[in-house]
Amino acid sequence: MTRPDGRAKDEMRPVKLTTGFTMYAEGSVLAEMGNTRVICTASVEEKVPPFLEGKGLGWVTAEYAMLPRSTNTRKKRDIKSLKLDGRSSEIQRLIGRALRAVVDREALGERQITIDCDVIQADGGTRCASITGGYAALYLACRKLVDEGVIEKMPLTAAVSAVSVGIFEDEAVLDLNYAEDSHAIVDCNVVMTSKGEFIEVQGTGEGRPFTRNELDQLLALGEQGCSRLCEIQKSVLGE
Amino acid sequence: MTRPDGRAKDEMRPVKLTTGFTMYAEGSVLAEMGNTRVICTASVEEKVPPFLEGKGLGWVTAEYAMLPRSTNTRKKRDIKSLKLDGRSSEIQRLIGRALRAVVDREALGERQITIDCDVIQADGGTRCASITGGYAALYLACRKLVDEGVIEKMPLTAAVSAVSVGIFEDEAVLDLNYAEDSHAIVDCNVVMTSKGEFIEVQGTGEGRPFTRNELDQLLALGEQGCSRLCEIQKSVLGE
Amino acid sequence: MTRPDGRAKDEMRPVKLTTGFTMYAEGSVLAEMGNTRVICTASVEEKVPPFLEGKGLGWVTAEYAMLPRSTNTRKKRDIKSLKLDGRSSEIQRLIGRALRAVVDREALGERQITIDCDVIQADGGTRCASITGGYAALYLACRKLVDEGVIEKMPLTAAVSAVSVGIFEDEAVLDLNYAEDSHAIVDCNVVMTSKGEFIEVQGTGEGRPFTRNELDQLLALGEQGCSRLCEIQKSVLGE
Amino acid sequence: MTRPDGRAKDEMRPVKLTTGFTMYAEGSVLAEMGNTRVICTASVEEKVPPFLEGKGLGWVTAEYAMLPRSTNTRKKRDIKSLKLDGRSSEIQRLIGRALRAVVDREALGERQITIDCDVIQADGGTRCASITGGYAALYLACRKLVDEGVIEKMPLTAAVSAVSVGIFEDEAVLDLNYAEDSHAIVDCNVVMTSKGEFIEVQGTGEGRPFTRNELDQLLALGEQGCSRLCEIQKSVLGE
Amino acid sequence: MTRPDGRAKDEMRPVKLTTGFTMYAEGSVLAEMGNTRVICTASVEEKVPPFLEGKGLGWVTAEYAMLPRSTNTRKKRDIKSLKLDGRSSEIQRLIGRALRAVVDREALGERQITIDCDVIQADGGTRCASITGGYAALYLACRKLVDEGVIEKMPLTAAVSAVSVGIFEDEAVLDLNYAEDSHAIVDCNVVMTSKGEFIEVQGTGEGRPFTRNELDQLLALGEQGCSRLCEIQKSVLGE
Amino acid sequence: MTRPDGRAKDEMRPVKLTTGFTMYAEGSVLAEMGNTRVICTASVEEKVPPFLEGKGLGWVTAEYAMLPRSTNTRKKRDIKSLKLDGRSSEIQRLIGRALRAVVDREALGERQITIDCDVIQADGGTRCASITGGYAALYLACRKLVDEGVIEKMPLTAAVSAVSVGIFEDEAVLDLNYAEDSHAIVDCNVVMTSKGEFIEVQGTGEGRPFTRNELDQLLALGEQGCSRLCEIQKSVLGE
Repeated sequence: MTRPDGRAKDEMRPVKLTTGFTMYAEGSVLAEMGNTRVICTASVEEKVPPFLEGKGLGWVTAEYAMLPRSTNTRKKRDIKSLKLDGRSSEIQRLIGRALRAVVDREALGERQITIDCDVIQADGGTRCASITGGYAALYLACRKLVDEGVIEKMPLTAAVSAVSVGIFEDEAVLDLNYAEDSHAIVDCNVVMTSKGEFIEVQGTGEGRPFTRNELDQLLALGEQGCSRLCEIQKSVLGE
Repeated sequence: MTRPDGRAKDEMRPVKLTTGFTMYAEGSVLAEMGNTRVICTASVEEKVPPFLEGKGLGWVTAEYAMLPRSTNTRKKRDIKSLKLDGRSSEIQRLIGRALRAVVDREALGERQITIDCDVIQADGGTRCASITGGYAALYLACRKLVDEGVIEKMPLTAAVSAVSVGIFEDEAVLDLNYAEDSHAIVDCNVVMTSKGEFIEVQGTGEGRPFTRNELDQLLALGEQGCSRLCEIQKSVLGE
Repeated sequence: MTRPDGRAKDEMRPVKLTTGFTMYAEGSVLAEMGNTRVICTASVEEKVPPFLEGKGLGWVTAEYAMLPRSTNTRKKRDIKSLKLDGRSSEIQRLIGRALRAVVDREALGERQITIDCDVIQADGGTRCASITGGYAALYLACRKLVDEGVIEKMPLTAAVSAVSVGIFEDEAVLDLNYAEDSHAIVDCNVVMTSKGEFIEVQGTGEGRPFTRNELDQLLALGEQGCSRLCEIQKSVLGE
Repeated sequence: MTRPDGRAKDEMRPVKLTTGFTMYAEGSVLAEMGNTRVICTASVEEKVPPFLEGKGLGWVTAEYAMLPRSTNTRKKRDIKSLKLDGRSSEIQRLIGRALRAVVDREALGERQITIDCDVIQADGGTRCASITGGYAALYLACRKLVDEGVIEKMPLTAAVSAVSVGIFEDEAVLDLNYAEDSHAIVDCNVVMTSKGEFIEVQGTGEGRPFTRNELDQLLALGEQGCSRLCEIQKSVLGE
Repeated sequence: MTRPDGRAKDEMRPVKLTTGFTMYAEGSVLAEMGNTRVICTASVEEKVPPFLEGKGLGWVTAEYAMLPRSTNTRKKRDIKSLKLDGRSSEIQRLIGRALRAVVDREALGERQITIDCDVIQADGGTRCASITGGYAALYLACRKLVDEGVIEKMPLTAAVSAVSVGIFEDEAVLDLNYAEDSHAIVDCNVVMTSKGEFIEVQGTGEGRPFTRNELDQLLALGEQGCSRLCEIQKSVLGE
Repeated sequence: MTRPDGRAKDEMRPVKLTTGFTMYAEGSVLAEMGNTRVICTASVEEKVPPFLEGKGLGWVTAEYAMLPRSTNTRKKRDIKSLKLDGRSSEIQRLIGRALRAVVDREALGERQITIDCDVIQADGGTRCASITGGYAALYLACRKLVDEGVIEKMPLTAAVSAVSVGIFEDEAVLDLNYAEDSHAIVDCNVVMTSKGEFIEVQGTGEGRPFTRNELDQLLALGEQGCSRLCEIQKSVLGE
């Protein structure tokens, strides 16, 4: 099997995290994995959702959307149909859960950080790029809170990154682009901490069910990819 | 560790699938796992979504909702806020994917089967009960199509069932009820075919990240639970 | 004239009220009239709508919905079209008005009881079954409030029941099923108290206008049916 | 008992139907009952709803709304909350049913007439004024279709009018204004044909249940009011 | 060139402002420009939007809508599509801005006045008639507040009126009716104060771009029209 | 007066149009005016809106939105409130009108081009940057249609650009940034063709009314700015 873009099975696309991509957000990152490009911003607000008021705990939430022409065919804006796209809803719930898993909500204090992930170009793996870039934006916003003396210590217990793995033409491959993803028979997203632990594993048999052995191969590739992503995060965020 | 209801770690709650629960649907099942009760109906329509018209392929989709007082605290109906609940959206996408994985869409022909999963009482594991019961309703509707000569052969390639597993008080347990689920530190849903293959694995570290070893324990419990559920399906559906 | 199911003109279908049908609601009843089945739950909340705050008065409101496949042809969920179905809106307003008519809102105190009526199988007369079963659920929730010492006395001044009557093939009949209802030329819903007084009368000429004499016949049948329903309520609720 | 505006118990407020109130609609009427003023227009469209296509039958439907400041306190527009007001929904269903009851849908042919009832000033009885005025607008639109040779004969089998009756300070009164309506203990809307038959009777015990004897008094007053309204319609429409 | 209705190029249609058109609003005016008729009401509420609370400043806002049959072809109500019409949104923002420009918000104090402009008949120039009539309604409501001693002095610094001008068959004309407006190649709305200053100028090349010279002609006509409208306002409002 | 960023009164901020900014759209441009950055894409679809079907004419429409953190304070997504923001609605109508003014719709043929303008950073003048960049994206998409032989000749009759002018501290200035715009007493957007003609002029007295003399100064500045923008467009688009 040869991958459409000639990569080795365990080879990720070039990854780039550009910090300070926009000027207003407390944390802002352009996350690129190959042709996939996502603007991730972290916005701090000095209030929490009603169910947390007065508890001294912070909150981190995420929103995900695609620009209409981030894809090959123009996609209608959600507001046209008055409905949040089901896939977007599922993805933003995943991003939020993934990032909250490393947040020390007591250390963050009673404030909310919203991670906005807006895809400007989609070539597979947008949810994973959103998590990897979203973590970087979250880190920058927290760093700013610490630097400004708003909070005492970094409220993050580990870094988080995510990568997609899948079975393409009956072989396990790392970091699928759109051409691979749309033909993958098994698709799996792996979210891990910088300590090598899992936060979320979502494996789906798109074209056919899969065996335990296949899942093991996918998880191994996922561990490898996330480990590499954490290094890149570290080099960019300087820690 | 003792489980709140005294079960063994690998013990499921009593499971009951009542077929013919309502009279209009082509397939209808009341799925019960302990106190969790879900009405699953399969409705056949002689049309497919626009993107499939003229291709000779069928479609299976699912919708999931909870009655307002299926839970301990009354939950507002979606129509009140004009928004499909994000969790419901995620769950119904999962149910649809899980069931489509065993559908021979060519054999089904150009028609759609909608699986409605309406939770009348929720005590943990509603999405799994929906998949297990939804498959039974789907099977009954297909059987009816075959019996009436509308299609030639059963368009299902295997049975599908699902069970939740999780880490509760640092131990892996099977089939969590609400008391366990709400305190679980890792939560995992496993969807499998009657052939022992995986269709979907979704593991989430709710309280903390988890190790590869923990995931392996959870998958083993999941395999055990799904295998038992397939037997129950077989005994009820008579095949 | 012979009725489709062979009943006498003044004969109701078998009526069954199953209390405690679900486990979370303060009051819960499965109301069955023939094949029509409605889950009625009463949920108590310790708050009232804004327009009643601080007045020491309680509130009772109702919501009504049909499961998608409670009917012969699958009915889309309201959330799909983002619009509460006009018929459902009309019916839930009727249920709320009917039940409030027997509530001593001062005795109830500043709390709200929401009656949810979810039709799982519809064979005519769902709004009447909702009122009859909704009253039983309301009664049970109030009894619980009294038993727990939250309120001092039952805040209900009478029982409420409802029955449909109509003109089918030019004759007045009691408790129309769907086959009759869909061909009735006059359709009338009668809501009464256990004291034999009217709470609501809604007569509509569906196929043709009707005379005063016909209305009188319908009202007489309605009185007869409601009287029988009150007896059944009394035997089930033990009062 | 003295009525707030000094009328006799069986005295209606001054009624005025101004035809040709706006210039575009096929039929247009300003209906006034005392201070209640409703613009009623009938719009003809050469198409029917999907469920009627190809059946050779026409359709009549109605929409009802109140201008924001038609009432004492400004009422938000429905579009602000994205929800059709429940009361408006109920009323427009009533208007549509009432008018369809006298339409010969075969004679109308495959076209739809929409009756828009927009309340510019509300002082009680707006739904009844809408029906009485809506009929006049419908008549004018049908007359125009006949005059232009689009259809051969008037597709109306009788005139329709409506009046509210109620029990105010324990006495039955005709045509309640807002001051009376808001304190009425029983409220009843009566819709009749010019042949003296009933199309719809909706009696509601707002403050307390009511007896059969009281209902009889209300119906008698309703018959009297509708009869007078039909005369006024006839004098205005010239038939 | 001859105008469709024979007017001179700089001749406005007959203008009529009927005060007290409805009885509940604090200010109420029927504004007519030729066949264009708009009901303008001003409603005073003793609260301001959240962003103004506690600042001691008032607010004036506007809403604009057309009755479904105010136009030649019936227009669906916004609530049917769940979307505020884009054109209505644009117009009501213009009306609000125009009126706020002459409001002394400190003198008005912490209260809001909502100007509702409901078009009952549209023959061109509805947004201008809404501004001209809306100012009159606003004036009446303010006068009432002064007369009742709620505020000390009139919180209005000038009168506001608006007129449409345009290039029709290559000539600049004043106050276009619908027949002209729908064929105009340039369309311009001019909003001015009674002091001869501009509040808003919106010129649009509908059919072709326009020159600076043409714009100058249009502005001159606009000044002439607004000046005349201010006189009419003064004669009606008695100041 | 000194401008906040030290520019001369008639000096624009640095302008940059980056073509080919994203890879899927038929035309794609990143438009920057100082810190304001807008992604403009042109998407071609081989269909037109229903009202144009079968007429052989093309259509150009626009959509405008801001990323949540394109501004100083995070702005909620429209889909959260289920309402298209009124300001966005007004702006996208303006962009669509402005671009359609130079489209030869017959030459374009029966296809639609949608211009999406997504603001990723807002520092004043986003609607003008959207028009200037949107024209460039439209040009590129049309050039592609010509190059691929889909249409015969460029369906554009001139270039379009737009600039904001305003009165800041009582002096007319060109191209206001956010700091100026938020304190401007008069705000004016000027849209012009490359032939020096006006397409749209929108002047608004935000802080006070303005005189004819002030408007003349603003228009002169606008002409100067648009002329410079057209040169930049020409140099980038190579024509």
